[in-house]
Amino acid sequence: MVSASPSVPSSAPPASPFVPVVPAGGAGTRLWPLSRRSHPKFLLDLTGSGRSLLQQTLDRLAPLGDRAPLVVTGRAHEAEVREQAGAGVRVLAEPSPRNSMPAIALAAAVAAADDEDAVIGSFAADHLIADEAAFARAVASARAAAERGYLVTIGIEPTHPATGFGYIEEGATPSSLAGTGAVGVERFVEKPDRDRAEEFVRSGRFRWNAGMFVVRARVLLEALDAQIPPLAAGARRIAAALGTAEEAEVRERVWPTLTAIAIDHALAEPLSVAGRVAMVPAAFGWDDVGDFAALARQLRERREGADGVHAEGSDVVVVGGAETIAIDAQATVYGSPTRPVALVGVEGISVVDTPDVLLVLADERAQDLSRLGSLLDAEGLDALR
Amino acid sequence: MVSASPSVPSSAPPASPFVPVVPAGGAGTRLWPLSRRSHPKFLLDLTGSGRSLLQQTLDRLAPLGDRAPLVVTGRAHEAEVREQAGAGVRVLAEPSPRNSMPAIALAAAVAAADDEDAVIGSFAADHLIADEAAFARAVASARAAAERGYLVTIGIEPTHPATGFGYIEEGATPSSLAGTGAVGVERFVEKPDRDRAEEFVRSGRFRWNAGMFVVRARVLLEALDAQIPPLAAGARRIAAALGTAEEAEVRERVWPTLTAIAIDHALAEPLSVAGRVAMVPAAFGWDDVGDFAALARQLRERREGADGVHAEGSDVVVVGGAETIAIDAQATVYGSPTRPVALVGVEGISVVDTPDVLLVLADERAQDLSRLGSLLDAEGLDALR
Repeated sequence: MVSASPSVPSSAPPASPFVPVVPAGGAGTRLWPLSRRSHPKFLLDLTGSGRSLLQQTLDRLAPLGDRAPLVVTGRAHEAEVREQAGAGVRVLAEPSPRNSMPAIALAAAVAAADDEDAVIGSFAADHLIADEAAFARAVASARAAAERGYLVTIGIEPTHPATGFGYIEEGATPSSLAGTGAVGVERFVEKPDRDRAEEFVRSGRFRWNAGMFVVRARVLLEALDAQIPPLAAGARRIAAALGTAEEAEVRERVWPTLTAIAIDHALAEPLSVAGRVAMVPAAFGWDDVGDFAALARQLRERREGADGVHAEGSDVVVVGGAETIAIDAQATVYGSPTRPVALVGVEGISVVDTPDVLLVLADERAQDLSRLGSLLDAEGLDALR
Repeated sequence: MVSASPSVPSSAPPASPFVPVVPAGGAGTRLWPLSRRSHPKFLLDLTGSGRSLLQQTLDRLAPLGDRAPLVVTGRAHEAEVREQAGAGVRVLAEPSPRNSMPAIALAAAVAAADDEDAVIGSFAADHLIADEAAFARAVASARAAAERGYLVTIGIEPTHPATGFGYIEEGATPSSLAGTGAVGVERFVEKPDRDRAEEFVRSGRFRWNAGMFVVRARVLLEALDAQIPPLAAGARRIAAALGTAEEAEVRERVWPTLTAIAIDHALAEPLSVAGRVAMVPAAFGWDDVGDFAALARQLRERREGADGVHAEGSDVVVVGGAETIAIDAQATVYGSPTRPVALVGVEGISVVDTPDVLLVLADERAQDLSRLGSLLDAEGLDALR
C-alpha cells in the first residue's frame, strides 16, 4: 500500500482517467406495477422529472467522467437502454443475469483495456441523489483514495435506523489515506434488525452501504484474480473480444461460466478484512427508492408533478398527470392524464393506476409488495409481473 | 273514518285491487362514480345480483299487485327504465323533476281512473330488502289499514341510531286499526342528530321512515284536494289525458305547474296531526344503500360476487368481476373483468374503478362523497357527474 505523500494536496486533480460504470439491473418488484420485468425501475421516470432513473444517473455521472460511461444491462433491456442513454454512452449487454460482480468485472476489464490506469466508479442505475455537488465532491475523494490502491465505497450518513440497507462500520484510517477525505473500514454488515439498526445509528460509526464502489480497474481485476480467478479471467476474455469477429461467440461461451455473485461478497468483504477498503463518508440526499413509501417521501421533498390536484384539506402528490380531486386525503397518485382520480378520507396510501392493473397500497406496508409476485403467479396473472 | 268491523278477520284477503307504484328518481350522488346523472343508482346492479335496483324492486312488487306496476321516472331515463322494466310494467315519464308528491299523485290518479277502489303502494326504486316474505306480510297489513281510510307507512325497526334517515314516532292506535297489524302515528321527525337518534332508538317508539306509503288512491287525491288543490287537480288532468290525442299537450302544459314537494311534507305530516296516518312496524333487512359504507355492509351480508379474489389475510368483496389480489386488506372493489386490482394493507376503503374515473374512498367518510360534486364542477370535470 502506498503512503500518503504530504506533497500531494487533497485539492490536486486525480491523475488517472475516470470511467463511470452503471450496472442497470434489478426488477424493482416493490415498485410494481410501475416497474415490470419487461420495463424495470431504472427505465422509469418515477419522480415526474422528465428523465428516467438511468438517465438521471448518467446525467449525474457523465460530467465527472474522463471517458464515456459504461452501462451494463440485461439483453432484454439493451435496446431501450441504448435509446435512453443516447450517444456518448457505451452499453454492454449481459446474456443472462449473473449478479453484480461479473458486470463490474467486465466493465473494469473494458476500462483497463482502454487505459491501464483507469479508475472506475460503479453506481446503481436506479437510485436518487438530491445534492449533486456533494455527490461530485464525494466521488472526487473516492477517486483520490482509489489512486492509492484502495477499493473505495461511499458511506451514506444514516437519517434513520433503516433495516432495508446494509451498513459499513468505520475503522482506523491508515496514514496512506491522509488528505483524501476517505477513512478506513472495519467491516460490512448485512441488513440489520431494528434493534441493531438503532444501535448502529446511535454509535455514529455506521453508514449505509449504497453499493457505490470506486477503484482502479487494474486493482479490482488483480484482487479478483486472487479471490475468484476464473471470474477475473473470463471478464478479461470477453472484454478482449469486444469489437472483434469473435465477440459474440466468446461472450456467449464465457459469460454463463462466470460466478454469479455480488461485489460485496466477492471483493468488498474479503478486502475489508485485509484493510484494503476505504470509505468516503457523505450525505447528499441519497435514496434507493426501494418501495412506494420511499418514493412517496422523495416526491414530497421534491414536490414535482403536483399539478392537477384540486384538494380540500389534503396532502396529495400526483405523478403522471392524472387530474386529481381530493377531500381530506393524504396520498400519492400515479396515474395518466386520461383518467381522473378522486380521493376521499384516505390516509397514507399510494394509488397506482396503470392501463392493465390498479394497485392501492398502504404506504406502511410498502415492503410487503414483493409478496404479491407469488400470488400473481399462483393465480395465473404472471403476465402482469 | 271507518270503524274496524270485528266480522273481518285480519287474515281476510284485501278487497280492493292493489297497484304498486315506483317513483324512480334520485341521483345517488354518494354512490358516484357508479351512479351518474345520466345513469343513476336505481338503474344499477349494485350488488352483482344480475338485476338493477329498479328490477329488484319490480321483482318484489309485481307478485303483490293486482294491476301492473306503475313506474314514474324522469324523461331522460324513460327509455332505459322501459327496457329494464320489460312488458307488464307501465312507465310514466315526468317532463321535469318536481319531487315525489306530483309523481305519486299522478300514479294515484291513473290508478283511480282504472279502478275507483284501487289501493296504491309507493316504494322507492333504489332500496334493498333482504327478507321479501316479511316485506310481503308488511304490505298486506298496510293494505288492510289503507282500506280503512288511512295513509299507511311502513316503519322500519332501527338497527342502529342512524342520522341519515327520518323517524316516525308511534302513537295511540285507534280501534279502527284493530286486526290490521298497523299502529297509530304520533309524528314524523326529520333526520336527527346523533344524540336524538340514540334517544329515539332507546325509547323503542321510533322507527325509520323508509318513504313507503300505502293508501287508497281516492283517499290520497281527496286529502290532496284539501291540502294543495291545484296539485290534485293537475294530476287528475294529466291522468285523464293519457292515451288521448291531448296527452302530450296536457302533460307539457300542466306538469310544470304542479307544486314541487315531497309526499312527507304535502300529506304525511299534516295527516298525522289529524290522526289519519297509520304505521306497520316491520323488520325485513331494509337498506336505502345511501352511500358506499352502506353498500359495503350489504355486500358483506350477501357475499354475492365474491369470485375472483385471491387473498392472504384479507376481507375483500368484489363487484363487477375484477380479478383481485390482496394481502392484509379490508376493502370493497367495484371494477371490471378487464382490469385486475391489487390491494396491500389497506383497511375500510372502497375502490371504484370505472372506465373514465377512479375513486378511492375511506368508508367512514362515505357521506362526504356528496361534496365531490362541487369540486368536480369547479375544476371543469362536471362531465363526470
